[in-house]
Amino acid sequence: MREIRNDLYLRTLRGEKVERTPIWVMRQAGRYLPEYRETRKQAGDFLTLCKTPELACKVTMQPIDRFGLDAAILFSDILTIPDAMGLELVLEEGVGPVFNKPIRTISDIDNIHIPNMETDLSYVTSAIKVIREELNDRVPLIGFTGSPWTLASYMVEGSGSKEFRRIKGLMFEDPNSMHRLLQIVTDSVVDYLRAQVAAGAQSLMVFDTWGGMLSTDNYQRFSLEYMHQIVSSLKSDPVTQDVPVVLFTKGGGQWLEMMVETKCDGLGLDWTVDMAAAKARVGDKVVLQGNMDPVIMNTGEQQVMSGATQVLEAYGHHAPEDRGHIFNLGHGIQPFAKPENMTALVNTVKSHSTNYHC
Amino acid sequence: MREIRNDLYLRTLRGEKVERTPIWVMRQAGRYLPEYRETRKQAGDFLTLCKTPELACKVTMQPIDRFGLDAAILFSDILTIPDAMGLELVLEEGVGPVFNKPIRTISDIDNIHIPNMETDLSYVTSAIKVIREELNDRVPLIGFTGSPWTLASYMVEGSGSKEFRRIKGLMFEDPNSMHRLLQIVTDSVVDYLRAQVAAGAQSLMVFDTWGGMLSTDNYQRFSLEYMHQIVSSLKSDPVTQDVPVVLFTKGGGQWLEMMVETKCDGLGLDWTVDMAAAKARVGDKVVLQGNMDPVIMNTGEQQVMSGATQVLEAYGHHAPEDRGHIFNLGHGIQPFAKPENMTALVNTVKSHSTNYHC
Repeated sequence: MREIRNDLYLRTLRGEKVERTPIWVMRQAGRYLPEYRETRKQAGDFLTLCKTPELACKVTMQPIDRFGLDAAILFSDILTIPDAMGLELVLEEGVGPVFNKPIRTISDIDNIHIPNMETDLSYVTSAIKVIREELNDRVPLIGFTGSPWTLASYMVEGSGSKEFRRIKGLMFEDPNSMHRLLQIVTDSVVDYLRAQVAAGAQSLMVFDTWGGMLSTDNYQRFSLEYMHQIVSSLKSDPVTQDVPVVLFTKGGGQWLEMMVETKCDGLGLDWTVDMAAAKARVGDKVVLQGNMDPVIMNTGEQQVMSGATQVLEAYGHHAPEDRGHIFNLGHGIQPFAKPENMTALVNTVKSHSTNYHC
Repeated sequence: MREIRNDLYLRTLRGEKVERTPIWVMRQAGRYLPEYRETRKQAGDFLTLCKTPELACKVTMQPIDRFGLDAAILFSDILTIPDAMGLELVLEEGVGPVFNKPIRTISDIDNIHIPNMETDLSYVTSAIKVIREELNDRVPLIGFTGSPWTLASYMVEGSGSKEFRRIKGLMFEDPNSMHRLLQIVTDSVVDYLRAQVAAGAQSLMVFDTWGGMLSTDNYQRFSLEYMHQIVSSLKSDPVTQDVPVVLFTKGGGQWLEMMVETKCDGLGLDWTVDMAAAKARVGDKVVLQGNMDPVIMNTGEQQVMSGATQVLEAYGHHAPEDRGHIFNLGHGIQPFAKPENMTALVNTVKSHSTNYHC
């Protein structure tokens, strides 16, 4: 195994004592960056960007080169799995994701194509290999997936949704079919993450974007249960068992104690969660990742420095019983963010966080 | 004072021992009801419906007549205050609220017209008088407002929003102006609620639809602080001091303990909150209102009965130290809901809840 030059992110996720707080930013390779917009324009559209390993590598590297972040994240989309299942993903600027062939009947569930990682999703594993080559161990590479509930929501709604009445209708009226769909998705997600690790992903993140739309009870049964399965599968597979897994349920601040029971290594927190309170609740069991309000990145450097300092202060001193903190925003950075604010953010976290590690 | 025939809702909010759980439903006068759609058609548009006391009364009464709910709620919109402030509200089907003249500069804040309750908003107080007359004390009438943060969000965004970057931009970049705007709105909200009570509203609810978009810290400073002011003002005014106040922050499940400190009488809970956990946290301090997932109302009677039973069971037995429970959905009933499900819901709550009151 080659030596990793900056492995702060991985050491933190392993609960080791570190010298400062690592930082990466959700959607760090994104539209707020002029060089990203340029590459995206060359690619023609978002999916081509995802599906062309060299271009995916190029945009993955852009924020690493520009800002000196502590982790790279594979440039891809959470909906690659349903796309590979034959639902035909269309991503249009300003519209959000749409599936040409959403799940609308029970027989649509039966007819789901189970993706073959080596044929249907080789563009992802190829991208990971190209990125690892290019990274040359400068920083670790994060692979990711959408959560089964989140993927199923898109698959059944056919697009983003406000009220989720189709997917919730299925859940309330035919829970058995809902569970069957979730199990199919979960099995593919596990295969997918395993393939990502085999190709070179050094850490994994599960984005549960829509789990927060559920009641506590249904969150446990229809979202968390399947994330639990994912973590258990990964932890019992020799290929993936040493790869840290971070779970992120947007709107899941009420459920941190339950999420910890999955034995995941880290929890992503959205910006509504008070970091000090989260640390008191579960900080001795998992690494906490987050959680500055992303809108701050659209404002001024002063606000960014103050917002970052506040999050670091809220986590506070790293005592031996604390698993650790990874700085991030509470959700993806927005297209309106100012690139110079990323510089301010990274500098603030790098310099200020040393005060809390001693 | 005339005798109230069904005052179960008010007795529950006063923390009295009651014989069963009262029920009303957010947006109970709404598009899911054919008779509502008919009246709305006659009115031409939503705002005319709000601004014509006889029509507002008519739709307020429809669900009371049809389902035997335990409280009526004034038919109106949360945005009447900003409309009266001169921002020119436009409500179009499927588009959501839009202001023709949103707050875009600091001088827009200075130039806000402070609404005169007797001239600018007499249609609301007139509607309340007409409704009270028509109700003839069958059930109590709830008056309401949007929270200052929620109203300010609409005023600054100019419409609904996903990311709230304008209002949050103002909050982060010019907190003093943000506070000034919130104070102006709060003062008018207090006047407005006082006028509603003077006209006959017997209970009040504050809808904080967008407080859940804030970090814990900013929620306290920019939303809760102003709701706290509202409750304090009402409780120290002889006109309003005996009128119970319920606060509802959508997405506020993490903050119940803080909300209780306002000394409000009740807390509305959205469907993500576990009712049993909420009761354990604050059930001895406030009445809890909620919180079945509204999407269940779009499914079958069996699901409705089971969903209602689950919420009642989660609150459980009403012990002497428990302040009480008002059944409601966790958010407004949707246009796709089936009217017959309301019948099933009301019957289930009325019959089943007696088991927990003894």
